[in-house]
Amino acid sequence: MDDAAESSVLAIDLGGTRIRAAHISPDLTVSHRVAALTNDEAGVDAVVSRICEIAAEVLGAARAAGLPEPIGVGISAPGPLDRERGIVIEAPNLAGWRDVPLASRVADHVKLPTFLERDTNVAAQCEWRYGAARGSRDAIYITVSTGIGGGIIADGRPLFGADGTAGEVGHITVELDGPLCGDGQPGHVEAIASGTGIARAAREVLAAGGAPRLAASLAGAEPDARSVSEAADAGDPACLAILDHAWEALGALGASLVNLLNPEVIVLGGGIAVHRPEVIERFRDGIARRAFEASARRVRVAMAKHGDDVSLIGSLPIVIDRIHRSAAARSATGGVPAGDPAPLQRRTTT
Amino acid sequence: MDDAAESSVLAIDLGGTRIRAAHISPDLTVSHRVAALTNDEAGVDAVVSRICEIAAEVLGAARAAGLPEPIGVGISAPGPLDRERGIVIEAPNLAGWRDVPLASRVADHVKLPTFLERDTNVAAQCEWRYGAARGSRDAIYITVSTGIGGGIIADGRPLFGADGTAGEVGHITVELDGPLCGDGQPGHVEAIASGTGIARAAREVLAAGGAPRLAASLAGAEPDARSVSEAADAGDPACLAILDHAWEALGALGASLVNLLNPEVIVLGGGIAVHRPEVIERFRDGIARRAFEASARRVRVAMAKHGDDVSLIGSLPIVIDRIHRSAAARSATGGVPAGDPAPLQRRTTT
Repeated sequence: MDDAAESSVLAIDLGGTRIRAAHISPDLTVSHRVAALTNDEAGVDAVVSRICEIAAEVLGAARAAGLPEPIGVGISAPGPLDRERGIVIEAPNLAGWRDVPLASRVADHVKLPTFLERDTNVAAQCEWRYGAARGSRDAIYITVSTGIGGGIIADGRPLFGADGTAGEVGHITVELDGPLCGDGQPGHVEAIASGTGIARAAREVLAAGGAPRLAASLAGAEPDARSVSEAADAGDPACLAILDHAWEALGALGASLVNLLNPEVIVLGGGIAVHRPEVIERFRDGIARRAFEASARRVRVAMAKHGDDVSLIGSLPIVIDRIHRSAAARSATGGVPAGDPAPLQRRTTT
Repeated sequence: MDDAAESSVLAIDLGGTRIRAAHISPDLTVSHRVAALTNDEAGVDAVVSRICEIAAEVLGAARAAGLPEPIGVGISAPGPLDRERGIVIEAPNLAGWRDVPLASRVADHVKLPTFLERDTNVAAQCEWRYGAARGSRDAIYITVSTGIGGGIIADGRPLFGADGTAGEVGHITVELDGPLCGDGQPGHVEAIASGTGIARAAREVLAAGGAPRLAASLAGAEPDARSVSEAADAGDPACLAILDHAWEALGALGASLVNLLNPEVIVLGGGIAVHRPEVIERFRDGIARRAFEASARRVRVAMAKHGDDVSLIGSLPIVIDRIHRSAAARSATGGVPAGDPAPLQRRTTT
């Protein structure tokens, strides 16, 4: 096995819209990128086959270019998932995805040990190991995009919780009687401050005859976070109010996390945080107004350093750690892994 | 040094109203209890002297009874505090307490290594090691009393955060524009569901001429959680509404913690949770309605097993762990402790 500092990995990011894959070098160079539409209407098997093909394509190109052979494959996928067994338990944005043994399918195809991790945990690892949270022991990554999600680093280790679902910062209640979330529950911050939440609020205003500037710009199309933002920038009061409410909810989330977890740094990523510079300012302001003074002063709030590549680059340390952990478990138990399973390539050949 | 399983400790609980101390045996027997009013108006030095006297009294009685000599002293105190250096940074309920080196003062007096820990972390350790959360790797303790506080166990270790203030579950925002907390910030769950929050809501209702049954029972006195509860039990609709709002906020807190930390168990303690049996039911109900279905099904919600003694018994594992950690650090560094300081008795004799 290569020394960890010399290892490369093959990274795959499974999103609701796109599948991306690339070779990740030890110096974090992302190369031989391949992307395709997820096209989940084609069915689970078709999507899994496409993931396998894309992975093989990246691998072939990297080999042809003489790059170091990847020690394994890291797949970033939406949760909930079983990270130990490499199974997507359910993917709300992917039709029909229930209990899909994605890691073993990919491992069988590319003949490399393959590991599955929730996308927000992959992003958190990326920013913690190589980005804006580097060097900290207590950090939180938050993505503000179509949804709101996150990953937690606590005392120098990723925090997974009992079933690996910890870090779901978007599903914290900030309004007891607030709007319903995608999961049907009231007042989660995701229902107010995500792209989906902003669009829902805009639809309600439009249905009530408000936001004339937004209505004119849409010309009958459905509103989204971008069109609401543009109407707000053009001075539409209803759209300004929608965004004000969203950023206030995000700030309250930040303050709650500061009081609960006392982090050194919170890293913001995701399309909405990246494209609306006021988000980070309002987030800091919310923490200052709603969190303990000392903890609020202590925490640093920063934008993600690796942008869209967080869910690719983060697979590098995850794959290295899990392969080393498996090896340690095997040598400690005389060949039988304890806790973490052996790399899936081995398991699926039994 | 005694083997950990054979060690006794001297435990002190510094509260806003009372100081309590006792000898804690390896089998968790709490003996030779001494208590006194805190009487903080007498000044910091007077309170510290009283703590030292009480500690010496328990120690003397335990020695006279032939009990095993304690290996150290554990002090449970309200935060914020510096647990590594044993300093109470600020105690909101104790007049004048700022940067008080409590551990070294007690260590000097009783000549035993002395450690300071936040009261809710002591309680969390008690229930995790010996109580309702025993055997779990991911657990949360919540006290619902005059205030609301908590302690977190994450992946088999207490979670402290960057400055040791993690676990402040009472200061999570559940209403963006909710009532102000003691710290002047809006919508924290403590402002709604603590004894202080319930009393504040009752004062507002009384000032507006509501809650006639409560007004009659008080006869001019100030309302508190007990009088509001009694009026609610007698059918006062305004008091019923105050409690309904409080329990709803607590349930939302529970759901947020489940979604964020994915614990195996949440333990409820504190006077209000103990005396109002509906609290645990409403807490479970709030989790079921507001958290992810799988995580909500997974989490167990239980009442604290050790009642008022959580903040005494919890010092047993804390003192043992910290003494062993200090010893390990000294032997690893040739006598110079790394990270955790040596027991404070040694430090203060230099």
